[in-house]
Amino acid sequence: MERKITFAIEGMGNVEISAIAGENILELARKANVAIDAPCSGNGSCGKCRVKLLEGEIESRITRHITEEDYAAGWRLACESKVGESDAVIMVPDIASAYRSRMKIADLTDTAEIEIFNTTKTEIFGTGIATGTKLTKVSVELVEPTLDDAMSDLERISMELEGQLGEAVVPTHFAVSRLPKALRSSGFRADCIIEERNGAKYLVDVWGADEEHKLCGIAIDIGTTTVSAVLVDLESGDILAKASSGNGQIRYGADVINRIIEATKPNGIKKLQKAVIEETITPIIRNMCASAKIAKEDVCRVTIAANTTMNHLFAGIDPESIRMEPYVPVFMDFTGFYAADVNLPVNPNAELVIAPNIGSYVGGDITAGTLASMMWNSEEMALFIDLGTNGELVFGNADFLMSCACSAGPAFEGGDISCGMRATDGAIESCTIDKETLKPSLGIVGPEGTKPIGLCGSGLIDMVAEMFRCGIINPLGKINVEGERIRSDEYGMKSYVIAFADESETGREITLTEVDLDNFIRAKGAIFSAIKIMLESLDFPIEVITKVIIAGGIGSGINIKNAIRIGMLPDIEHEFYSYIGNSSLSGAYAMLISEEARDKVTELKNNMTYMELSSNPNYMDEFVASCFLPHTNASLFPSAMED
Amino acid sequence: MERKITFAIEGMGNVEISAIAGENILELARKANVAIDAPCSGNGSCGKCRVKLLEGEIESRITRHITEEDYAAGWRLACESKVGESDAVIMVPDIASAYRSRMKIADLTDTAEIEIFNTTKTEIFGTGIATGTKLTKVSVELVEPTLDDAMSDLERISMELEGQLGEAVVPTHFAVSRLPKALRSSGFRADCIIEERNGAKYLVDVWGADEEHKLCGIAIDIGTTTVSAVLVDLESGDILAKASSGNGQIRYGADVINRIIEATKPNGIKKLQKAVIEETITPIIRNMCASAKIAKEDVCRVTIAANTTMNHLFAGIDPESIRMEPYVPVFMDFTGFYAADVNLPVNPNAELVIAPNIGSYVGGDITAGTLASMMWNSEEMALFIDLGTNGELVFGNADFLMSCACSAGPAFEGGDISCGMRATDGAIESCTIDKETLKPSLGIVGPEGTKPIGLCGSGLIDMVAEMFRCGIINPLGKINVEGERIRSDEYGMKSYVIAFADESETGREITLTEVDLDNFIRAKGAIFSAIKIMLESLDFPIEVITKVIIAGGIGSGINIKNAIRIGMLPDIEHEFYSYIGNSSLSGAYAMLISEEARDKVTELKNNMTYMELSSNPNYMDEFVASCFLPHTNASLFPSAMED
Repeated sequence: MERKITFAIEGMGNVEISAIAGENILELARKANVAIDAPCSGNGSCGKCRVKLLEGEIESRITRHITEEDYAAGWRLACESKVGESDAVIMVPDIASAYRSRMKIADLTDTAEIEIFNTTKTEIFGTGIATGTKLTKVSVELVEPTLDDAMSDLERISMELEGQLGEAVVPTHFAVSRLPKALRSSGFRADCIIEERNGAKYLVDVWGADEEHKLCGIAIDIGTTTVSAVLVDLESGDILAKASSGNGQIRYGADVINRIIEATKPNGIKKLQKAVIEETITPIIRNMCASAKIAKEDVCRVTIAANTTMNHLFAGIDPESIRMEPYVPVFMDFTGFYAADVNLPVNPNAELVIAPNIGSYVGGDITAGTLASMMWNSEEMALFIDLGTNGELVFGNADFLMSCACSAGPAFEGGDISCGMRATDGAIESCTIDKETLKPSLGIVGPEGTKPIGLCGSGLIDMVAEMFRCGIINPLGKINVEGERIRSDEYGMKSYVIAFADESETGREITLTEVDLDNFIRAKGAIFSAIKIMLESLDFPIEVITKVIIAGGIGSGINIKNAIRIGMLPDIEHEFYSYIGNSSLSGAYAMLISEEARDKVTELKNNMTYMELSSNPNYMDEFVASCFLPHTNASLFPSAMED
Repeated sequence: MERKITFAIEGMGNVEISAIAGENILELARKANVAIDAPCSGNGSCGKCRVKLLEGEIESRITRHITEEDYAAGWRLACESKVGESDAVIMVPDIASAYRSRMKIADLTDTAEIEIFNTTKTEIFGTGIATGTKLTKVSVELVEPTLDDAMSDLERISMELEGQLGEAVVPTHFAVSRLPKALRSSGFRADCIIEERNGAKYLVDVWGADEEHKLCGIAIDIGTTTVSAVLVDLESGDILAKASSGNGQIRYGADVINRIIEATKPNGIKKLQKAVIEETITPIIRNMCASAKIAKEDVCRVTIAANTTMNHLFAGIDPESIRMEPYVPVFMDFTGFYAADVNLPVNPNAELVIAPNIGSYVGGDITAGTLASMMWNSEEMALFIDLGTNGELVFGNADFLMSCACSAGPAFEGGDISCGMRATDGAIESCTIDKETLKPSLGIVGPEGTKPIGLCGSGLIDMVAEMFRCGIINPLGKINVEGERIRSDEYGMKSYVIAFADESETGREITLTEVDLDNFIRAKGAIFSAIKIMLESLDFPIEVITKVIIAGGIGSGINIKNAIRIGMLPDIEHEFYSYIGNSSLSGAYAMLISEEARDKVTELKNNMTYMELSSNPNYMDEFVASCFLPHTNASLFPSAMED
């Protein structure tokens, strides 16, 4: 028999859907297009998909994320609940669903980003890379038709363009559809947008000379978690608008592997493509165009920096081979891709310039980011680390580049950590612990007085480093003290109370468990072991590095000293470290206003070696050695023992 | 206040729509997507939009098409009725709505058509025009990827293709989206569909070598009234399926002028494009692909022969300039147009090859038809007449070609004639009249025993010729006899009863009025005067014509002797006349399987003169002289007086 399930979304209203007994509540929410944050993609491990039963019954159970008390109050994990024998009303808390609007995102105001975006208009990064794309604007003044000169609009403009350009121009359907109005709006004077493609010149658009238009482009960074974009005047290079939001795919899992698994389900590719294009990028583009008063059709070029899986899902291309041995993507570099192919709400002829991928787990976000890192323009041995939902590394200089991906997992973005969360309001982003009282002092995202909800990546690094410094945990991440902040469950698993129930926003205790610590240590171990293996494979010691460039959402808040103390980052001089913000978007911006920058990225991709860590025979050993605070070989981290 | 109007469509079920008092019933039906045949586009003149009020009230009136008796029985003209003060249930008779399924259409079984379609596979029409398109199939066998050879699918296939073809191939989004499945279905062996476009080679599609595919194309004739198409195996030239249906735009008017007027209303272009693509061509393509068991993506080339307005509306391009002085279309020839541009349900990369237009009123149907007429391949002076919703003429031979359009109007397809109808079941398609009794003998479309409903084009020609022969009408088309079959109304307007109420399908008398006769005579006069003016402008007498090629839906049924008798066609030997069926579709078929044929059509278009009749100073005089049976100059039709 059919049940009616009502999702009461906090601050948003109700959504009703019919269901049958036994249907999974998280799946049902997805079907009803109700966003419930589920970083672990519904396998019960992250505990983020808490919902509250208001009326009726659903089948559920007490789990490590839902205490008896929680259960009695109506709390359930959506992923572990099923439609029962009655209708039900289920409250979806704001925290679980509204991450999109409150996400703390790269706002493009970071100094390093500004430097790149304030590049001179004719040269990018001061490296001799000239600006300018294959789009040109050609003005025409045509003789108006008469009864004796009844040539069609298209013949009329084509003849004039051929005269001016010395070759025939290929019309596009969109340009022809705009032709009659453009010509008649302006006494048969028009500006033609022409683009060279594969050796021929194409008529991309036609603007009446008296109409208001501006030749624009959009650069987009599609992260697994966050999507950011800039709207740019292609002639001046000026940024006209900026926007960001959470990636709507998040409800299908926090990491790329879960997204790929969702994509392989029936109609999955379309579903994930829709989540990122229709639900995420389309509103971003609309908002930017509206705020800059630009017609969406004036956007004639779009650049995209994204990891390999995001690139595939954006393009609507089956990503399954990415996660199946031998881990081969469908494409690395893909030219010949246009806005109309994916219904992006810009000029349908806008080329979608995708920063090329290096491998299945090092994508265009890294090639574009490498461009922005400038490491390719110096003899200095540099390490570029992009800490997003996954961690990717590039090591090298002007002579060579090597890249790899470390499966750090989603710990830095709140996944796999019971009290983990993304860097939205209420996230603890920094922390110190008093060695005597073991009481933490917390830095919290949000307005003055915001109460803590959980830990984001940078807060987690600080928390672990401080717990280690204060002796709360041993090098294995096991809690080895007692006190009012130390809890122990029936199985002997211990946890540290970061905030008591009355101190937290949710009224629940915020604790870090030994399981969380274990997950985190594996994540930081993955990063360090990747750095070490990559350098070893080139016969370089860690000390060869004289520059570390950190990029990505988590980066800005990282306390380098703490990251070194826990053995996550190499123990080199703190001055060697720099942060360049959203390098992926910076690179995409450069590719947007400069065809040469685009070619440079392709060159970087062609010259960059991709190292598959998992096939390196030393990797497992090094990983295990790195899953220790700071490392089994403590001599690698001499500064870790300083107070 | 809102009213509920229910359209009870005979044999189809009910459609409900909310309306407000005063809304026009025909407009309302269109809004509700209920097809009501309205050849005059709702100006009250054709009387075809009869509906029957079953319940409630609507505001309407008695007109020349709705007698008092009709009115009492509930009959109303939809175009002259408005929503009243109550809800209403309105019956839409099968006759008015179901023309689509019952239309007698060119079924491609005509001898002349068969001759063209049975062209040898390597040469078309025996004229040395070679078959073959720019589409080629290239087979590849790729090395399967391994952990040590993790090149992406696209790089892998691109490298192989570049090796085979000696140049880089440009991937398309669709081909890339098909790549992973194609390669993995068949052990990395695949067939690549490659097309040359503007000097570069494009990857249109990729088929797994073990998958079932056939390289196909579709030729479509988009008539103002009827759409016909063939699905063709591009490699063999074989026709795999055929289909036709009425043009769904018909509810927006019978002729191109009314369609253009509708298109200029808000959202009109989209609406008319949807009517022809989504509602008409899409089902045709689906049906053909289903019956031939062809995947729609295997259709990689589409050719279209259509008049200039139909071309514009198909492409979704504003046709307004066609009907505004100086009568300039947006395009004549348009290459660079693909299925994805208009969401045609075939391979999105399929080029839409449009037979080029000559002018605003001589379109691609005529250039394609001229190819099929073969007149360009002979020294013989030939006249090609396409009798569709409008009439178009081409005169000439291998040395020159001249074309013009005559505004014959919709009389031959049932418009402007009170008892006119299209050639569906119940249409009188031929007739003789007994000179003594004035009783007609009717040939009726449909199974044995079908009762008459009205007159279609060929029946109308016979009827007028016979009425003239029997002396029922004088040379001006005025009825000048009395008798039981002659009616006279209160204003003195006479009419001839073709069938009494008890003889007709509808139970209403079928009559031909003097107004009908006047409309018809103007239509036939338009055709003959166009022929005469065109020849005169070249200083040729009528007798120079030794070949008349008739094409178009109406053509097959025409009694040449009668058409000459009424002064519609030149009085030359009957043997000079031939009928070639749907020449527009035949031409589109040739262009489908032969790039050379396509080039030939472009050449014909470039060499063909377009004559704007209305700007010829003698045209009005000649037209007036032709509006007479057979002509004011009877010596032009010596055979007209034979019995």
